[in-house]
Amino acid sequence: MDGVLDLIFKRRSIRQYTDQPVEREVLVQLLRAAMAAPSAVNSQPWEFVVITSPEGMDGLRKILPLGRYNAPTAIVVCGSPIRARNPAGLLFWVQDCSAAIQNILLAATGMGLGTVWIGVHPVPGLGRQVRKTLHIPPHVTPLGVIYVGYPAEEKTSRTRYNESRVHWGVYDIFKRP
Amino acid sequence: MDGVLDLIFKRRSIRQYTDQPVEREVLVQLLRAAMAAPSAVNSQPWEFVVITSPEGMDGLRKILPLGRYNAPTAIVVCGSPIRARNPAGLLFWVQDCSAAIQNILLAATGMGLGTVWIGVHPVPGLGRQVRKTLHIPPHVTPLGVIYVGYPAEEKTSRTRYNESRVHWGVYDIFKRP
Repeated sequence: MDGVLDLIFKRRSIRQYTDQPVEREVLVQLLRAAMAAPSAVNSQPWEFVVITSPEGMDGLRKILPLGRYNAPTAIVVCGSPIRARNPAGLLFWVQDCSAAIQNILLAATGMGLGTVWIGVHPVPGLGRQVRKTLHIPPHVTPLGVIYVGYPAEEKTSRTRYNESRVHWGVYDIFKRP
Repeated sequence: MDGVLDLIFKRRSIRQYTDQPVEREVLVQLLRAAMAAPSAVNSQPWEFVVITSPEGMDGLRKILPLGRYNAPTAIVVCGSPIRARNPAGLLFWVQDCSAAIQNILLAATGMGLGTVWIGVHPVPGLGRQVRKTLHIPPHVTPLGVIYVGYPAEEKTSRTRYNESRVHWGVYDIFKRP
């Protein structure tokens, strides 16, 4: 497939949205993308809470200091080792769920949507508030909140490629940052 | 862009590779994809060690019980809060580096390459061995090893979408797994 780098570079954090709602079928496509992520030993240690109501979004905005944006929809990605298919989920749930999130962001970009990833875990105290707002039980951990909507701002494509972060062969401790 | 879901579903763990080497320019493209990942507060808490020599790959295979595969190349993705642009890297480096890894996997898929993600951190003892083999200093943490090569096996596209992992509005504790 041509254009994979274009897609990846096009994904930017969008913080201004139109008031067009996101169709449920579109959200399901994003969740299909999420659950195509790799997971350690195929543990699939994830659950998703999808917020589409104005009241629900207001509730999220109230508790997320870095999530005051006007998106109409959010997907809360949670680690759920108890629902995982094997104990690998206990070690790797953050990584597996993060891969699922990146799939959501890229799928959304490819479908003309905007997103922004708001980190929750392990910010002290924040997970507890998200849990309470969304009735998430104690054994499930909200990792991040992904706002989703149609973008009302344009951003240029980019990478932050930095050659000084790359080591060939072995790590070079003398390489300048 | 059409086909973003096709790309995401096409990404599968590849464990058999041809002996065709991966060109350095291709590896740089994968690193450009990696460093286009989002990071918390734009902290970019990552560094990458790229292994392309047969000896280097033998060294990795020796220490990775779940990485005995014949890939010609590997990218070791490391968390590096000390090189991060701000302290957000301390909280979110695992998530940021995992998003970078997922970008590598998808970019590779789109470019006709195969990959498999071998988890390192936080497997007890494994990070220390990877550090020693690649001369990685103590303040840099190898998160995972990505094998990269031209695939010698074919896998069908898929998602693991599971409706029981999705909650609409609030978490439904009575939803059957």
